[in-house]
This record gives sequence, C-alpha cells and structure tokens, in this order.
Amino acid sequence: MEKETENKNNITALSANVERVFSEAYYIGRASTAKGVVASYIPELAKADPTAFGLFMLDNNGNSLCFGDFETRFSIQSICKVVILAAALKYRGFRGTFDHVMMEPSGDAFNSILKLDMRSNLPFNPMINAGAIQTVSLLADLLSFDELVSFARELCHDEGIVLDEAVYKSEFDSGDRNRAIVYLLKSKGVLMADPDKTVDLYFKMCSLSVTARSLASLGLVISNGGIDPVSGMRLIEAEHVRTVKSLMFTCGMYDFSGEFGVRVGVPAKSGVGGGLVCAAPGMGIGLYGPALDPFGNSIAAVKSMEHISEKLGLHVFDY
Amino acid sequence: MEKETENKNNITALSANVERVFSEAYYIGRASTAKGVVASYIPELAKADPTAFGLFMLDNNGNSLCFGDFETRFSIQSICKVVILAAALKYRGFRGTFDHVMMEPSGDAFNSILKLDMRSNLPFNPMINAGAIQTVSLLADLLSFDELVSFARELCHDEGIVLDEAVYKSEFDSGDRNRAIVYLLKSKGVLMADPDKTVDLYFKMCSLSVTARSLASLGLVISNGGIDPVSGMRLIEAEHVRTVKSLMFTCGMYDFSGEFGVRVGVPAKSGVGGGLVCAAPGMGIGLYGPALDPFGNSIAAVKSMEHISEKLGLHVFDY
Amino acid sequence: MEKETENKNNITALSANVERVFSEAYYIGRASTAKGVVASYIPELAKADPTAFGLFMLDNNGNSLCFGDFETRFSIQSICKVVILAAALKYRGFRGTFDHVMMEPSGDAFNSILKLDMRSNLPFNPMINAGAIQTVSLLADLLSFDELVSFARELCHDEGIVLDEAVYKSEFDSGDRNRAIVYLLKSKGVLMADPDKTVDLYFKMCSLSVTARSLASLGLVISNGGIDPVSGMRLIEAEHVRTVKSLMFTCGMYDFSGEFGVRVGVPAKSGVGGGLVCAAPGMGIGLYGPALDPFGNSIAAVKSMEHISEKLGLHVFDY
Amino acid sequence: MEKETENKNNITALSANVERVFSEAYYIGRASTAKGVVASYIPELAKADPTAFGLFMLDNNGNSLCFGDFETRFSIQSICKVVILAAALKYRGFRGTFDHVMMEPSGDAFNSILKLDMRSNLPFNPMINAGAIQTVSLLADLLSFDELVSFARELCHDEGIVLDEAVYKSEFDSGDRNRAIVYLLKSKGVLMADPDKTVDLYFKMCSLSVTARSLASLGLVISNGGIDPVSGMRLIEAEHVRTVKSLMFTCGMYDFSGEFGVRVGVPAKSGVGGGLVCAAPGMGIGLYGPALDPFGNSIAAVKSMEHISEKLGLHVFDY
Repeated sequence: MEKETENKNNITALSANVERVFSEAYYIGRASTAKGVVASYIPELAKADPTAFGLFMLDNNGNSLCFGDFETRFSIQSICKVVILAAALKYRGFRGTFDHVMMEPSGDAFNSILKLDMRSNLPFNPMINAGAIQTVSLLADLLSFDELVSFARELCHDEGIVLDEAVYKSEFDSGDRNRAIVYLLKSKGVLMADPDKTVDLYFKMCSLSVTARSLASLGLVISNGGIDPVSGMRLIEAEHVRTVKSLMFTCGMYDFSGEFGVRVGVPAKSGVGGGLVCAAPGMGIGLYGPALDPFGNSIAAVKSMEHISEKLGLHVFDY
Repeated sequence: MEKETENKNNITALSANVERVFSEAYYIGRASTAKGVVASYIPELAKADPTAFGLFMLDNNGNSLCFGDFETRFSIQSICKVVILAAALKYRGFRGTFDHVMMEPSGDAFNSILKLDMRSNLPFNPMINAGAIQTVSLLADLLSFDELVSFARELCHDEGIVLDEAVYKSEFDSGDRNRAIVYLLKSKGVLMADPDKTVDLYFKMCSLSVTARSLASLGLVISNGGIDPVSGMRLIEAEHVRTVKSLMFTCGMYDFSGEFGVRVGVPAKSGVGGGLVCAAPGMGIGLYGPALDPFGNSIAAVKSMEHISEKLGLHVFDY
Repeated sequence: MEKETENKNNITALSANVERVFSEAYYIGRASTAKGVVASYIPELAKADPTAFGLFMLDNNGNSLCFGDFETRFSIQSICKVVILAAALKYRGFRGTFDHVMMEPSGDAFNSILKLDMRSNLPFNPMINAGAIQTVSLLADLLSFDELVSFARELCHDEGIVLDEAVYKSEFDSGDRNRAIVYLLKSKGVLMADPDKTVDLYFKMCSLSVTARSLASLGLVISNGGIDPVSGMRLIEAEHVRTVKSLMFTCGMYDFSGEFGVRVGVPAKSGVGGGLVCAAPGMGIGLYGPALDPFGNSIAAVKSMEHISEKLGLHVFDY
Repeated sequence: MEKETENKNNITALSANVERVFSEAYYIGRASTAKGVVASYIPELAKADPTAFGLFMLDNNGNSLCFGDFETRFSIQSICKVVILAAALKYRGFRGTFDHVMMEPSGDAFNSILKLDMRSNLPFNPMINAGAIQTVSLLADLLSFDELVSFARELCHDEGIVLDEAVYKSEFDSGDRNRAIVYLLKSKGVLMADPDKTVDLYFKMCSLSVTARSLASLGLVISNGGIDPVSGMRLIEAEHVRTVKSLMFTCGMYDFSGEFGVRVGVPAKSGVGGGLVCAAPGMGIGLYGPALDPFGNSIAAVKSMEHISEKLGLHVFDY
C-alpha cells in the first residue's frame, strides 16, 4: 500500500482524524474484496484483479489522500452516466433533457428492460441503462465522441482518459441487451437519434479509462457546485449540479441506492468496472475495487464509504 | 387569508425576504388548487373542500408563519408512515426494523401490490403501503394505539390529534386493498403480527387528524435532528432521524419522489388527505391542500414548496 | 398392485390393447413417483404417501379399469374449479359467468397474484385461484355448501364425497394468499359476494375428498357431453360442457397447460392434492399421485397420461 | 359479392345447409367490418380497404365455397408463424424445436416483450413474436428465404405467394420492436442465428402475399393431418400437425385465444394484415378482413367463424 498526502496550497491542512479514518477505510475496503466477484458479463472486465483496491480523496482546500491502486486505469462503465447527464443538461438544458427521460428512482437492477416496457414510454431516470442511452440520443447529433471525451477529461482533471479499445470491443461484442433497449426506445418513438449511432456512442462512453484519482476530481467538481476548485472555472451550471446530485442520491447505486442513501448519504455513482465516485460535503472521493457485491457495486468501495461517512459525519442528512 | 407572524423568543427574527417568499408561495399554491382533484377512493376524503389551502412554517429560532387553512383538521393518511417508521426505529432499532422491510425506492404508486409480488418477499420501503403495514406489524404487539397517538402528538406538538372516527370507518369499509396487502405479507411469512390487528392499527394511524401546523412541528423535529427545539427534548435518535430523512427524500412523494428531490430537494412526505410535511434546513413546513395531482400529492403544496425551495435555496444539494 | 376389470353391461368389451396400455401406464406412473415431491404449502397435504399412485378408467360403454390406489381418498384441491365453473354456468349462465371472469390462459403458476394486478380488473380464467374465487363469489349467495357438495357427488357419481375437516382446517389456517386474492378482487369492485364467505366456501370446495374413481366419473360426464352415461341424465348443458372442456384444455394444468395440450391433448385439470381428471374421447380417466412435478401437477399422472394418449391416439388433434 | 361453388371431384357434394351457413357468415362478417380498425403500426398495412372481406372454404372432398374478396392479396403477417413452426418441426424435429422455445400460452398481446424479460430465458410459444423470431433463428442457417417461400407455396397450394416488397420495406423500416426482441434473445444467449439475419428473415416471412383461398388450403392441410388432400402428398408429419394445431388452439388468436377456443373451438391463427386461417374438422377456412378488433384479430373473420362453428357444430369439444 502506498500512501501520500499532498497539500498543494496549505490553506487548510487535513486533520489527523481525517487521515486516520481514510486509512482505516482503506484497510476495511481491501479486506472485503475477497467477498466480491469481478463482473463477467463483458469478457474484458473479467480480467480485472479481484484483490485490487484504490482510494483517492480530494478536498476543496487542495488536500488529497491516496491509497493502494489509485492510479490503476479501469473502464468507467456506468459512471459515464454522470458525464452524459451533465453534458445533456449543458447542451440541451433542463427541459430539453427531462422532456425525454424521467427522474424517478426505479429500484431496479442496472440492466432491467422490464420497467421500460411496463409503465411509460420514457425511461425512468438517466442513471439506468435505458435512461442513459436515451440521454445519449440527445447528444449524438450534437457532439462528437471526441468532444464528450474532452468534457470527461475536464470534469475529471485527467488528460489520460482515452477509449480503452479492448473494453470497447468487448462492449460492442456483448452489448445485445443495450441494443435491445435502444431498439425498444426507437419503437416507442422516443429515441432522439439513430439507434446504432446512439448505442455505439454509449458503448464508447462506457469504455473510457479512468482512475480513482480522476473520479475524486469528478466528485469534487460536483460537490463543489460545478466549479473546478483548482482553476476556479465553472464546469457545470449550479442548477444542473443539484439535479445531478439528486439523481445520484436517489438512483446512483443500482438496487442498493436507497440503502446507500440511508447508510452513507452522499451522492454517488458506481460502475461494474469497479469504480465509485462520491460527492461528499467539501470533498470528492474516488474508489476502485473490481470485486462487486450482488447489486453490481464495488464491495470494497461501499464498505470504505460506510466507514468514512460514519466517522467523518458526511451524511447529507446528518444534523 | 389570514397571516400571522409569531416570534416567541426573538432570538433571530425572520427576514422580510422569507416572509415575502412564503406569502408568494401561499398565493401560488392557492391558485393551483383548481387544477387538482380531491381523493375519492375513500368516501370520507371526498368531502374535503378542493379550494382549501393552508401553509405553516416553523423555524428553529421559534419563528413561525401561517397562511390560510392552517388550522383545519384533516386526516394524516400516508404521512403516518413517518410516525410509524420513527416508532419502529425507536422500539425495534435499525436492524430490528430493516430486517423486515427494505430501504429501496420503488418508483411505484402508493397502492402498488405488484412490486410486492414480483421480486422479493419484503416490501420495498416503509413509505409505501405494503412497507408501512409491514412496519406496523413490528409494533402491533408492542404498543397500543393510544401509545402511538401519544408519540404522534409529541412529534407534532399537537394535543388535538385524535382518531377521526368518520375517516376511520371509511378506511375500514374501503380498505380491501390494504387487507389484500396484509394477507399477502402473511402468506409470504414475513408479517410480524396478526393481520387483522395490523391492518386495523394501520387504518387508525391513517385516520389521525392533524393540521398544517402540526405537520410543521413534525417537520421541524425531523429537520432539527430529532430534538424538539421548544423543549430541547430528544424525540428521535440522531441516527434514526437521518434514516427517516433519507427515506422521505427517496420515497416520500409516491411516483413523484425523484422529481420532487430534483426540484425541491428536501425530505418530505405527502398523504392523500392533502397533507405535506417538509423537513427543510432549519425549518419545518406543514401544508394542507386536498386537491391532488395525478401522483396523489397535494397540488398546491407541491407548487408552494417549489417556489419556497427555489427562492430560499433550501435544496439539500444546493451549494 | 391390484387390477380389476369390470364390464357392467357388456355392450362393447375393452380390447386387450387398451388393457395393456393402461397397465403399462400404471407402471410408468408409479416408477416416476420418486422424482416428484408432495405439496407442503398446506401442512395436511404434506402427510400424503409420496409413492401412492392410483389410476381409474371408465368408458361410455360401462367398462372400467383400475390400478393401485384408486380408492384412496384425497382432497380435490384445484380440481374443484371444474365443479365450480360447471355450477356457475348452470346457475348463472354463460353471460352471467363470463361477465365476471375472463377466458384467457394466463400461463402463470397456480397462485399468481401478479397477473390480477397488472392488466385488468377481472381474473384471467376460472382455472386459476383468482378466477375460481371470483366464480365462487357468483354462487356464494345462491347455493349452500351442501348444495355444491351434492352437485359434486352427482358429477363424480360418488356419495362418499365429504368435507375433509383436517384439510379444511389446514386450508383455512394457511389460506392467506387466497385471502389476499379475495380482498384484491373486492378492492377492484368485481367480487360478487362477501369476501370472507367467498373464500371460506372456496376453502371448503378445495377440501372435498375424492378418489381416482370419482374423478374418472367426472371426466366421463364431461367427455360425454354432460350426460351421465349410467343414468342417461344430463348433468351439464351441452354448450356449457364445451366451455368447460375448452378452458380445461387451455388452462387446466397450471404452467404446463400448453405442453400438456401438445403432448397429451385432452381436457384435464389437476390439483396439488395429487389428483388429475381427464376427459378423453369416449372415456373418463381419474388419477391420483401426490408426488408433484415443479408445476404442481402429479408427476405420475402426467407420465401415465402421456403414455395412454400416445398409445391409444386420444389426442384431440390427432387425425 | 361474388359467390361460386366448385366441386371438383364430386365425391361428396356440399349440403344446402353448409352453403347457407357460409353465406350467412359472409354477410355477418361484412356487416361487422365497420366496427373494426385497420392496423396502422406499419404504414403499408394502413392502406388496406377497411370494408374488404373475403371468405374461402375448402373441404377434403374437394368442395369449395368463396365469397367477396377471396382473391385479394394481403400480407400474411403473424400467420407466417404457422409456416415457420411447421418448417422448424420438419427440419429440426420436435426436440430440436422445443429445446429452444416453450409451448405455454402467454395470454399476452402480439408484441409483448414483458413476458420475455420476466420469467424465463425462452419465449413462451412460437405463436407470439418473440417465439416466432426465436423459431426463425433455428432455420436461418439451414434454409434460404426462397426455400421457405416454396414450403409456404406448397402448404397454401398457391404459386402466387411472393414477397410483397412494399410491405417488407415497411416492416423493415418499422420493425424496431422486433429488433429489440431479437437482441434481447441474443443477450440471453438463446438465439440460434445472427440477429440481423434472423429478424430480416422474419420480416420477409411476414411480408408474404396470400389470399383467403391460400389460407383455406393451408387450413385444410393442417385439418387433414398434414396430407394435401388434392395430391395425397404428406406435407407435415402427423405428430407435428397435432403440435401445430394444439398451439394454434391455445395461442393462435393473441389475447383472444382462450375466448376463441371457447366460442369457436377450432385451431386458428390470425395476422394483423387481416388474415385468419382455421383448421376445422374436415375443412380449411381462410378469411380476409383488414378491419381489426382491439385484440388485433380481423373483426369480420371472428364474427364469421362464430356463426359457422355454431351452426355447423365445428367446435372440437362439441359432442
């Protein structure tokens, strides 16, 4: 395990307590990896090291903490839904987005097609596959993949984000359920771009390579109301950030979203690649642990966050 | 319209801005009542005046604002789910409660039986009927109805809360869907008390008579971390309050919970009697408007809260 | 194994081939009992001998064949749905019945509540629990239980049919899912009698004690167009019999109805007590084998019928 | 209206009663067309004349009766499912077919994707879209489209059956729901050929142009146990025909299958192009009426068949 404390601008140093809590959380997380299972639905994901675990914290005073495999690159997977939603809000606006996708938690597994077919013509929210694909269709004729990558790099403060070609190929080859979803959306008359182009762009977005560090930066921008604390630049409009945070809170953790909201209580989004981004008060936290729990969330990341939130009082509804 | 400002302890007076925003919200709410429809599934509810609207705000400095029908008594209906959950947490503890009911938003209408039958044996969360009935079964052999009424009076600072016999009779006579739910829970082997006793206690809890003022008090206790700001007494444990708030946030507004979270962003719970309780930062807000929107929420209360949250920046994820 | 051939009136003797086929079918059936499991959802049913198997054939020339446990009494369970439907058609007529229950195969397990809640207010057909309970509600204010027992005795040519009190008590004590169904029907406004009275009458009908021989008589009356071939009396109207047969064909074997229609091809109804009634061309066949397959059908009875139908060409769509 | 009686081989002439019943049925059918609506989900179908109605009867003595628009060409649509199933049974065998698709009536609309996603990985039966597409995947690598057309021509005694290019184009352009289904089947790992190739072959099969006369021939072959009564050639194996008939009986008429079984009682299959094929005892009946009822069946064809079955006693469960 490597550990490192950077304090770039020395405005407010991290307390010893914060350091200890993160250190404990790292050990708790790593110890739990053995109970999880690496995702296998896409062959490329199955290659990940199940014992890997990385943790990166960045606060808005410029302090950071990092542990373990915090620089390992992995595919962003469902966490790209946060980037997609932020882009849709930026380029299409609130109405231009939510005229095409709802905001309701669905309480369903990440790949459910059932809800889409049952009640409404619009997908439940942008944090499930159907909703993210629908949201991508709002962007497919407006932005190139390269432009979306640039936006992701900006949000994550990470120029190293590129398309992981092997993951993309794996997504493309195994993406039939997402193809079923895009054609179902098309058949309902709600999809806003060509189905092949849409689902291909979605596969590419899922295949972006990130690190725990990049996710911490993303979390901090969101936590910080959309402003990059390093440059001071606004990357997401204030009114859009609260939308993103609300939907991460209610829908970001698959079928565990409600319980994560109760136990951890911070806006978060996980991906089956093992990543987790958290936008905690005053800090962004990025985690990487490819061993997943039955809900599809990184088991180490969830265990770590439970400890961190409890010990540091990060729950949004803590008094 | 009557308006009244009490400032009992003068610690911090309300700003003119706060007063103006609430006043505007009251007018916005009242203007919207014509677009809603009074609930008719229980005959007794159908008698309510569709144009009625009341608004009561109480802050933790002791300031209050009140408008319109803030003293009209109406039945608490689904808002009793908050009282039931708080009681279960108090008397059964966190594990003793959530071993028997889940915490996941279901994204379903208030009377859905479908979800209960499809995926799991445990109801999705304590804010839907199946979950609240299940939670009542944890209390039915432990507390009398009178003890639960006392707890409700305490939380709402309202000795006037009594059983509305006419509503109770109406609930009892029309409660077949809830009977179906209780027997379904029994048949799944998860119900923790006698089904008739359980559903009867649930009907009684739904028939408690409250006012916008009592709901404001309830909201303030929750907002205030479980401590009654008047007496300084702790009524709900701190760790239980954050659970209650989280579940109100993700599941409190029926099929509009996600959108209310995005647009208003405060823990809230509505009832088909027209009530709405909101636990906003530093204040409790109680509303009463029996004209409902298609989701079963008071149309005036929702419109009012959108205005109040936006103008006063109450959204929990506002920066 | 006991075997016995009665030929009361000698009009047309059974061929040696028919006797051999039934004898083979009996051995095939008995050999398969080890692969099944006795129903346990009602304690009283769990007491049955899993190796028991009885087979009784009665043709409209008065010939009969009987094997094994053909005189063992067991509870009729879901086969009472055939009696209930015949009674409803007799006392309420075709329109008076099917204004209140549909005729569509549901392809669902015997105790599904899901379909009831999803699509329509009327249960799918009288061969599933919800549909049978609904059909009972058409009779509950018209006929006493004793009158229904008399009708069952007549159809089954069996004065020994009585209420099995132990099974009834077991049904009553374990019948919460059926109570859920009856209250759901009530809440939808479609139930035609008091819910408690209706479900109690249904429990009683399920608790009638029959034998393989009584089911063979029932099958023969149905096969024979509603006329008792012994007495020559009409027990069911011709146009009602074809309705009963059609619904037995499309919906009589739980989730195996379609496959039984393909493989065996005769109107049939099974019960979780292990009974099976078949209305084959020119003959009624009653079977009893309490070891069930995963669909809830008697495993021995199904295997026997596959052999009999294939060897004797009983499939209704055989050329 | 044209009417014509051919009696090619004079073995057994039609009785005057049969002629009168068909004539009455024709008028009843035509009179009902005004209550139906032409399918619009595919643009090309919307062009059909809603008042059109044709009726063709062919018996196994070589007699025929024809009325109205019996020579109008229209697209076979879902009736191709019968041809596909017969081909799968012929080229893959019973096991080779039903290892890949179930035999259970689903009681669902023709385009339901819900059932596919909920309970099992295999589609419910070959008469619904998902099941027919799955069955096509068993043939796509074995037979060319031309070979399937030849098989259809043979079964229908109609060399005029060709691909209707305009309908095919319309199917192709509007077939997104079927694309969703084929990709869902692929994602579940059950599809047996390339998804694009499979769904394209299915679109083509749906676009075959037939007449009421060709459907009567198809019905007669099926009714006649698989033997072409004109040539005496066996076109479908006897054991396969009873499977086809059973599945037509339980699943052939969309959500009206159960009621059609009760009311008419003959194996039948309808298509949204307005066609209906019936395999009645001793006769094949083909009907064409593009005005549909809410279930998607030709309203005139259903009304006609009710009259014919009742007056001529064609119900398979009539005594």
